[in-house]
This record gives sequence, structure tokens and C-alpha cells, in this order.
Amino acid sequence: MGTDKYEILQDLMRRRGFAWGSFEIYGGARGFYDYGPLGATIKRKIEQKIREAFIKEGFFELETPDITPEKVFIASGHVEKFVDPLVECKKCGLRFRADHLVEEVLEIDTEGMSAEHLSQLIKEHGIKCPECGGELGEVWYFNLMFETFIGPYKDKKGYLRPETAQGIFVNFKRLNAFARNRLPFGVFQIGKAYRNEISPRQGMLRLREFTQAEVEIFFNPKETTHPHFDEVKDIAVRLYPIENQLKDLGMIEMTLEEAVKRGYVMNTFFAYYMAMVKNILLDIGIPEDKIRFRQQLPEERAHYSSDTWDVEIHSERFGWIECVGIAYRGDYDLSRHKKMSGADLTVLIHYDEPKIVKHLKVSLNMKRVGPKLKGDAKRINDLIRSWDEEKLRNLVEVLEKDGKITIEGYKLVKDDFIVKEIEEKVMGEKIVPHVLEPSFGIDRPFYLLLENSLVIEDDRVYLKLKKDMAPIEVAVLPLVAKEPLKSIAYDVFRNLQKAGFIAVYDEKDTIGRRYVRYDEIGTPYCVTIDNQTPIDSTVTIRDRDTREQVRVKIEDLPEKLRELIFGS
Amino acid sequence: MGTDKYEILQDLMRRRGFAWGSFEIYGGARGFYDYGPLGATIKRKIEQKIREAFIKEGFFELETPDITPEKVFIASGHVEKFVDPLVECKKCGLRFRADHLVEEVLEIDTEGMSAEHLSQLIKEHGIKCPECGGELGEVWYFNLMFETFIGPYKDKKGYLRPETAQGIFVNFKRLNAFARNRLPFGVFQIGKAYRNEISPRQGMLRLREFTQAEVEIFFNPKETTHPHFDEVKDIAVRLYPIENQLKDLGMIEMTLEEAVKRGYVMNTFFAYYMAMVKNILLDIGIPEDKIRFRQQLPEERAHYSSDTWDVEIHSERFGWIECVGIAYRGDYDLSRHKKMSGADLTVLIHYDEPKIVKHLKVSLNMKRVGPKLKGDAKRINDLIRSWDEEKLRNLVEVLEKDGKITIEGYKLVKDDFIVKEIEEKVMGEKIVPHVLEPSFGIDRPFYLLLENSLVIEDDRVYLKLKKDMAPIEVAVLPLVAKEPLKSIAYDVFRNLQKAGFIAVYDEKDTIGRRYVRYDEIGTPYCVTIDNQTPIDSTVTIRDRDTREQVRVKIEDLPEKLRELIFGS
Repeated sequence: MGTDKYEILQDLMRRRGFAWGSFEIYGGARGFYDYGPLGATIKRKIEQKIREAFIKEGFFELETPDITPEKVFIASGHVEKFVDPLVECKKCGLRFRADHLVEEVLEIDTEGMSAEHLSQLIKEHGIKCPECGGELGEVWYFNLMFETFIGPYKDKKGYLRPETAQGIFVNFKRLNAFARNRLPFGVFQIGKAYRNEISPRQGMLRLREFTQAEVEIFFNPKETTHPHFDEVKDIAVRLYPIENQLKDLGMIEMTLEEAVKRGYVMNTFFAYYMAMVKNILLDIGIPEDKIRFRQQLPEERAHYSSDTWDVEIHSERFGWIECVGIAYRGDYDLSRHKKMSGADLTVLIHYDEPKIVKHLKVSLNMKRVGPKLKGDAKRINDLIRSWDEEKLRNLVEVLEKDGKITIEGYKLVKDDFIVKEIEEKVMGEKIVPHVLEPSFGIDRPFYLLLENSLVIEDDRVYLKLKKDMAPIEVAVLPLVAKEPLKSIAYDVFRNLQKAGFIAVYDEKDTIGRRYVRYDEIGTPYCVTIDNQTPIDSTVTIRDRDTREQVRVKIEDLPEKLRELIFGS
Repeated sequence: MGTDKYEILQDLMRRRGFAWGSFEIYGGARGFYDYGPLGATIKRKIEQKIREAFIKEGFFELETPDITPEKVFIASGHVEKFVDPLVECKKCGLRFRADHLVEEVLEIDTEGMSAEHLSQLIKEHGIKCPECGGELGEVWYFNLMFETFIGPYKDKKGYLRPETAQGIFVNFKRLNAFARNRLPFGVFQIGKAYRNEISPRQGMLRLREFTQAEVEIFFNPKETTHPHFDEVKDIAVRLYPIENQLKDLGMIEMTLEEAVKRGYVMNTFFAYYMAMVKNILLDIGIPEDKIRFRQQLPEERAHYSSDTWDVEIHSERFGWIECVGIAYRGDYDLSRHKKMSGADLTVLIHYDEPKIVKHLKVSLNMKRVGPKLKGDAKRINDLIRSWDEEKLRNLVEVLEKDGKITIEGYKLVKDDFIVKEIEEKVMGEKIVPHVLEPSFGIDRPFYLLLENSLVIEDDRVYLKLKKDMAPIEVAVLPLVAKEPLKSIAYDVFRNLQKAGFIAVYDEKDTIGRRYVRYDEIGTPYCVTIDNQTPIDSTVTIRDRDTREQVRVKIEDLPEKLRELIFGS
């Protein structure tokens, strides 16, 4: 066990069954992580918190495939734009991220730099292969999507989705029907996404296969006031806007109401979901002072976004880590899919009452102009009828003012025209909705929750997890492994299990060592069956954080524990 | 809308947001299905029932990647054996399942037939391409795993897992440490699996991407008595054993206790999990008379299994459908991974107390035999010391009886040997545990739950879902869309949402049409705010099945609904 906090945590995660690199017995595979029994339980609890929060908003869940036909990602722009610049050594054949290489050697910022530019810099500065010193080739774009083939032929290309969002967008028509054409509505999906990173580092923070909870909120861009904003307006957020990053001004803290008023956040609709994200992270157990909102710089933003706030969690080792992105995707995705598929991905926005729209209808008085225009009369008439409203209004204006006009060389007077104003009843306007997307990573908050929960004391190392997030909620321990204590303890354990608690029974080692064992994995309460138990049917409940014990009747145990752990 | 029950259900599933073929707007992709808002909610409830049942058994969840390096599936046998025989038309290039083709044309059973045999039959009977009549080529094996590459090179092959189980097996060492070396223990994983079917048919029943809940129970093959079997022994099961299938004897029904006694089920350990599976299916809402256990015929079994019982659910349209498999995988997987990886995947089974094991130690009395054997003395001595216990006992026996023996041409007498018996203290025996695997499909039970819940009455079509499985648990309806009913109804709705119910608010159409609308999607209760509500703060609760209404106070609503829906 190392003495560095990070090493202590890594050891604890592996040793006690939280998480570890996948395929260990086969030498491992970078970018893949396994959730062990305790880790998977915490991960599931994180997902459940997100799910419940959005269900309470009246949002619905969706589940779509990981494997996706190529067409979808041509439309979404991922085939073209979801790429990293790569360069290969002509001598040893190794491949490197060209931007990282240039950045390291020249110590310049390469964010957003083109392949051509990178190639040029490599040549100009004679940058060589960092492994063998060989000459490097041209920089090309490597697509980060995992590729596969669907069916027994090699012509139906598919990709593993790089984000869960597209599965929602391609279903917009059905989802809109489900929502009965009423904006705004929200849909979320919790599932896997995949990115074939060139050389993943930083353990769980950069995975090739990871879990997302993506929420797509479809709204009318003209209606950006959230009806329940009042409920969250006083929530304070720590912001790090673009301006403050560029001018090195540091973070600023204010209420969401103020953030909207001062123009940092575009509207109350956006701000409402910033509040939701913050509340969910707090509910998971991330400390408030470890959360900030950082606005992405223009060159950082994904191709579909015109404004994104990252919600970052602070790591002692890695600094501020992006864990959630709240992206304003505009109508980018729906418009692209509408165009590529030909499907009608619009919503009819009903006017409060049908609008009477007046249209001009102008044509030539053929009886009058016939002799004048001869064979051209029909052609000129068709031309006028093809004009749009603006052009027609213009025509009528000129006639009112001057009494005459020249069209294609023919002089025409007011009476040569028949001008009618007709009325049309319009129910509403068809729009492509805009999208706001809070997109949660699950793996990063998982790791950062553990890191921020780790407490190192003189005589113990323990995870001070929020009590309802603990993977083992209660450990039942006979003081000594003897009868009748053993049987009583086992019964207590089975009953707690049946009551829905994640419980364990443990009789091995001294009671002190067992307390240490369960403190280490964050178990909030140990129930101890001692010599007084057979006499009066009471047990002790020991609190992980205070190490204090209270004595309760066995029959009151489930209710008491429920109150202590879940607060209800 | 069709009149056939299947068509009515398909239409309902698509129209109301349960499930539909994926990527519709791009022409669809066979073998992929989307879960819509209502479907995803039911699917999640099914998964949750399975999860809770196994957590109550003290089992733990695990989560491992979908993308898996090739090595794992070489070890598991999937690279070699997870294949279908394919044949390609030399003229049009189309590919077909060779076994299905031969089966259809010759009307014979091709289960388990080799590629060579199929090729031969195709040639002998002149079977042609069913599409263009062209000549068919040789039959070859097509692997059903989706293939991809990990990282920027094309040499690191990976597959999308065809079952979630292998992610558990490769982690056995860590899991065993987590269970502190005590068998039996159980681990489960709920996640995606992928099979690149040649030509998937039957909608949701044969998918290329699907969800499994696989439970791997590691046990000592010498201890196959389940400690809690008594709790389930009286559960009756409908069995369809191999013998009855071969002799066309039909199904038989008996208690699990009887099934074990009469030798149909191998032991109480196996039988206990049959009970669990049955109880879970009942808890989901599958009718008892639609469940049976069918023992797989030897030629049907996967390469790793030596006995499998399928749990089948009856479909009006498709007949009996395999939904869960309970496979006895023996030590197949762990032994293969142990061999391939070199990792120690054994468990030390402690003896009740350490055993004193006696060993023979035999060597030559070098002083006596030296002159006789000369330069060969050392070689013969080494040879004898390399012999195993059995060979040594044999030697000693011969010497006791005859007083002499010939080894490599040398005649040796009893006194030429030094025979010692030494004692060793052995703590236990290292074994590779055996595995019992209840493996749930999720998509099939989902579909069959809907099919079996569909009720067609004269004036309505509705889903008689088990109440706690309904995707919308309560609909809140103002009798008419006017104040003050609207505001009261909206408040009631928001409060139910906050109390954790999946609720909707709906004011559109007549109350009768709204009841029909919510009956159709299985909503068990509608809460109606009528003209009496503003007077005495009461509302009605209408039961989906009986259509009866009871009047309750608004304040009692959450508790009353909780009782009605969840029974607690």
C-alpha cells in the first residue's frame, strides 16, 4: 500500500472489489475497466439517482442500440468530424496523436489545429518519432468510432455509438407523437458509449467504453423561460465563464438568477438544468466546494454545439475534471437527420388562436392587356403570379403611388391589374425544435466520488460515502463467533436482507478488525449482536463516522436503519 | 389496425411508445429494436425484479465491458464454436444458413450437422440458390460475434461479447477474494450481448443486440445440497424432460422435491434456482400456466454445457419460447481460462480439520548398491525418487512379497532400498469450482409479458399488466379542462410525481376516451378530479380491470395508491 492518497485509493478499489482494469489475467486492455461487486452497486445507485431526478421532471427513458448503421453517423457529422489527427513513424510503424506530439515538442497549444498545419509543423521543426527517432509521415484523421459489420457481408458498416444521444434524435418523430406534439419535453437514455481513443491514460477518467446518461430536452427556441425556475433561482453556482478563462480572472460565484440577469447563462431554461445537475451531484455525495461550471472555449466545443457548460468535479490528483456537459445543440441534429432521412422532424407550434393571414393575389386583367401584350400576356401573367408576397406588395405600392409600372419592357397601368386580398387561417408554425443536453458521464463521477470520500485517519482509512450511496448498507456482526450469538446474528442478517437492505453477515476476526473492515468500504452502520442480545433482544448500531453506538430493539432495526440511511 | 392479436399488439407497441424496429427513418436495420418511453420503463422494471431477487440471495452485481479482446473468446471456445454454417451462391453472391436451407428443401433435421455433411447434402441433392437458382459453393463456418479493432492498429482484434458471462469468469480470482474463498457464491451481470445473426426474424425474439441478466453461481461439486431448498421444495413445476421429448410423452408436473427425487433434476442446488427463476417470472407477471421447463436435447446444448433446462414462456403466435436457460457449465470455463491465462482459478476447500497425509519416500542405499550399479547408481536413484506415490507403493509391495526386484536390468534386494514414511499436514484441497448459470434474456420476457397481458374486449383493448409493472402507474385527470379542476389536478399530479410515482397529467378529450387511452397502455389507476373535489377534497380512483371507482381524500392518495400498486 502506497502512502500517496491516489495509490491508497487505487489499492483499496482493487483489493476490496470496487473497480480495476479489465482482463487482468490476460495482461489487461487499456481503456477498459471492470466494476467489481461494490463498485457496480455504487454505479447503479448513481444511475438511479439521475433516473429518478428526471422521472420526477416527467421525462421518459429510452433505450436504443449500441450498434448503429453508418448512415446515422454520416448525418450526425461523426463520420467526418469525430476524429483525432494521427501520425505514423515510417521506420518503426508506431502511431501517435499528432497534436499531442507537436504540443509536447514545441510547447504550443494545438487545440483545433488542422492535419495540414500539424504536418507542416512536424516537417518544419524536424519532429521525429519519440520511440525510435525515425521520420514521421503525413498527419491523417483517425475516426474514433469502433467499426464493425452488420450481417454476413462486409458491406453493411456499423459503428458503436460514440454518444447515446443519436438514438434519441433518430426517434424524434415517435417521441414527439408520444409527447403529443407539445414542447418542451425531455427524454433520457442511460447506456454505453464507445470511443476508440489512441492511447487512453488516467485510468477510469478516459475509457474506450463508458456509460453515459444523456438527457435531450426539445424546446421551442422562442420559449426559453422555464416554468419552475423560481424553485431553483436562489441556488448558488460557481462559474468559470469564457471571459474569465481568457483573462485569467478566476471563478465567480452567484445565484442562478443573477447568472441569467448578468448574461452569463443564456436563459432560465438553461439555468434550470444547471440547477438540476448540481442537485444530482450533491445527492450523489459530491461535496459542494468540489463542483464548478466551466464554459467551454469555442475551440473546445463539439461540432454540434454553440454553447456548452461543463460541470467539473475537483480531483486532488487530476485537478478539475469534466463530468457532465450541458450543451446547447440548437437544431443541429434534428435538421441534419431531417435532411438526410427526409423524415419530417418538425413540431407544429399552435398559435394561441388560429391566425388570419392576409395574402395578396395579383394577376393581369387579360381582357385589357391582351391587345397590348399580345403573345406575351400569358407569360407575364404567370411571372407575376410566381412572385412572393414582398414583391407583390412592392408592385401594389408602386401602382398606388405612380399609377403605372414597366414590366419586361411593357408599360402597364393600375387598371391592367386585378388585385385581391385573400385571407387564410393558419393553425401554427412548423419548427425544428432546439435541443438542450445535460450529458452525464457515470464513470468519472464514480471515481471522483470515491476520491472525495476517502478519509485517512491515524488508525483507519475509510470511505465517508453519503450513507444511501454505500454499496453495503449494513454489516451484521456477532460479537464472537459462538452460539447463541451466531444464530441470532444470522437471523437478523436474513431479515434485513429480506427487508431490502444490502447486508452482509460477518463473524471472522475480532470485532475491532471487523469495524475497520466495514469502515474501509464505507458501510455506514454495523449491527452488533452481543451478550446482552439473548437477554433483552437488543443490539447495537455503530455509526461509521462517529464510531458511536446506540442500542435498539431487534424489532425496531429495519425502521431505525431505514431512517438513518435513507432518511425516511 | 389488424384484427389478428399479434398485429393489434405490434400496432399498440409502436403507436403508444413501447417498442419498434430501430433506425426507422433510415429504412430500419434487422435484428435491432428500440425501447420507447413505456417499453424502456417496463424493461427496467423487469431488470430491477431480477436484480432485487438476487441481491436478496446475497449475490453481487458486476459490470464488465462489451468489447473484449480476442484471447478471452479463444479460451471460452467462442472463436471456434460460436458459428453458423453458411453457403454462398456462386451466381448472385447471396449468403444463406446452410442448415436451414437443407432443412427446408430435404425436410430433415440438421441440428448439429457438420459443414462437410451439409456441403455433401447440397451437392448430392443439387440444392440451388433459393433466390436466383444459381449453384451453391462449399459450406463454411461464419462466426456470430461482431468483430472490431481496439486502438489505432488493425492487429488488436476484439469482439462484442456474445454473452455477459465471460466477464465474470475472467474475474474469478478477484471475485473469489471478495467472497473470501467461501463457496458457494453468486455473481450476476445485467448488460448487453451481441450476436451477428445471419438473417434475424421474429421481431424482438431474435435480436442481434440484446440484454441478458446472467447469474454465475460457483460451487463445490461435492456439495450440491442447497441450504434453503426447504423453502421452495413444494413449488410445482411443469417439466418437459429429454426422455419425454424423444418419446413424445408430453409434459409432466410435480413439486421440485419430487423432481429431484425422481432424478429429473440433478440436485437440490439446481432445483433451488429453478424455483427462483419461476418466482421471478411470476413476479414480473407471466401467468403460471404459460411457464414450463424444457430440458435441452444433447445436440442443442452450447459447447460449455452438460445439462441445460430452458425456461420457456408460451406465445400464442410463436409457441413455446426459450426465455431463460439454466445451464450446468461444470468447470468448463474456469478450467479453460486457467489453462489459457496461467492464472490460479482454484478455491482452497478447507478440510474440517487439517488432514495428516502419509507419503512414501524411497531411495537407494548408496553405500550398498554403489559397487553393484557403479556409474548408474545415481541415475537409478533419481529415477526412483521421481516416481509417484502409486508406483512407490507398488515397489514396496513387491519387495515385501518377493524380497527382490529388477530395475533397468539390475537385480536389487530389499536391503538395497531405504524406505521412509513421512507425514504431511494438508489444510484442504484446491478445486476448480463448478458453475450453475441461470441466464435470463430480457427482451423476450418483455415481449411475452405484453403478449400475455393483452386483453381484447368488445369496447376496449387493454394491457392487463401486473400493477407494479405498469410503465405509467397513475394518470391524473380533471373531469373537464376547466378551473378550478385543472389547477387541483395539476397539483395532485405534481405531488404524486414527487412522491415517486410515474404519473401523467391529461386533460384532453372526454373522460371516457381518456380512460380508454390509459387502459390501453396498462395504467392500473386513473385519479379523477371532479366537481366534488373543490368541495370536500376527495377524488376518485378508477381501477383499470374492474372499471370500478372509489372515492378517497387527496391527502390519503399516495398511501392508498402505494398499497394498491405495490401492496405495501
